[in-house]
Amino acid sequence: MPADVPEAVTCRPIGVIRSPFREKFGIPRQPGLAPAARATLEPVPPFDRPEAFEGLDDFSHLWVLFHFHATARETWKPMVRPPRLGGNRRVGVFASRSMFRPNPIGLSVVALERIDRSGPRPVLHLQGVDLLDGTPVFDIKPYLPWVDAVPDARAAYADSRPGTQLPIRYSPEARQQLMDAAVSHPAFPTLLEQVLSLDPRPAYRTSRDEPGRLYGMRLAGFDVRWKTSEAGIEVVSIEPE
Amino acid sequence: MPADVPEAVTCRPIGVIRSPFREKFGIPRQPGLAPAARATLEPVPPFDRPEAFEGLDDFSHLWVLFHFHATARETWKPMVRPPRLGGNRRVGVFASRSMFRPNPIGLSVVALERIDRSGPRPVLHLQGVDLLDGTPVFDIKPYLPWVDAVPDARAAYADSRPGTQLPIRYSPEARQQLMDAAVSHPAFPTLLEQVLSLDPRPAYRTSRDEPGRLYGMRLAGFDVRWKTSEAGIEVVSIEPE
Repeated sequence: MPADVPEAVTCRPIGVIRSPFREKFGIPRQPGLAPAARATLEPVPPFDRPEAFEGLDDFSHLWVLFHFHATARETWKPMVRPPRLGGNRRVGVFASRSMFRPNPIGLSVVALERIDRSGPRPVLHLQGVDLLDGTPVFDIKPYLPWVDAVPDARAAYADSRPGTQLPIRYSPEARQQLMDAAVSHPAFPTLLEQVLSLDPRPAYRTSRDEPGRLYGMRLAGFDVRWKTSEAGIEVVSIEPE
Repeated sequence: MPADVPEAVTCRPIGVIRSPFREKFGIPRQPGLAPAARATLEPVPPFDRPEAFEGLDDFSHLWVLFHFHATARETWKPMVRPPRLGGNRRVGVFASRSMFRPNPIGLSVVALERIDRSGPRPVLHLQGVDLLDGTPVFDIKPYLPWVDAVPDARAAYADSRPGTQLPIRYSPEARQQLMDAAVSHPAFPTLLEQVLSLDPRPAYRTSRDEPGRLYGMRLAGFDVRWKTSEAGIEVVSIEPE
């Protein structure tokens, strides 16, 4: 054991995420999978000074370091079951991007759409997020492609984009509700389509699901219910929360 | 101001870096710039269980989240002067990768050479590091190219690899000392060449340096001294520490 085990460090949130994902279920498993998933990052005092974000507008992508706050109270285990391995095989926690980690810090690259400087503090508008509403943010760093992009990196069991893209159908009732939803939230149909097509079911269910099992999630202010079969997804209802 | 300013989080180091960089001066300003810069990452209890690293060997690259421990006691400022802007122009701290940040967490992608499992705990062998010896590590995550690689990202003032690659000469004395050093440390000459060719001088000096000014750094157990001129770098001595 090294003689100098280093001391712990306290991290203070510098901002909070406002996202359409009001619960963990349904969140894309990595950023960029649902480009229509927009969020804002709202800095909190004393980190909300406009100067601190000067020049950030000229970067197309950002790193967001954030707190896995919804699961932070659960203990970490040395091995986890990544969804990409069907939820059956285990790998070391440090060989995974699992949220159940010794230090519950997440890392996501997101597209920066714009920074709104019209209010009392700057608000960052992000695209392609995989972040729960209310997520505390510890840091923002500009994405540097000549450093951060290693397109040829070898990545074992997770070396390519998940293949699943389920087709989506709507029951007559759900189709009407979707049209109603689109009146107040024009971006909602695309977001819903992108999120559902990734198949939000737990990995262990995708191979042996009970036919007709109903799933539900809260997304962008709506309570969405659907069924999954071999033919794809059928949305059965979309109710305002 | 959001009503729910989130609480602070304590991060415990899960390991420590052993690197040839014994001081900040001379460290490449990003990872990957000096491929010969090898380091080990030694997990500390209770995070040193071999299972926690199971399957990591099949990833070629890792994210290391670490503590900017050498500068952690300095306060952050909303604006910083990045070396890439010559040390003269300022940008917001969140538009920079500066170590003087509200939460002093660094993020580096490194190549994973191998994991040594012969001892009581696994030891990760890394390449291309920009990490100070003794750096506490908060997290290790596998690099996922289909998520993390955005080669076309636009990156404002820092959109390409730094151009400087200074030619290196050795004084007769330094050349002899380099040959002596190579006997015990065969990798040292390449490491030294890569580190010096990046021009470790502070950015504000590169444009208007005093001729003949002597620089020194401790690298991999040696005390290296050199001068920089328009013709490049002349190493004048390489003494064992």
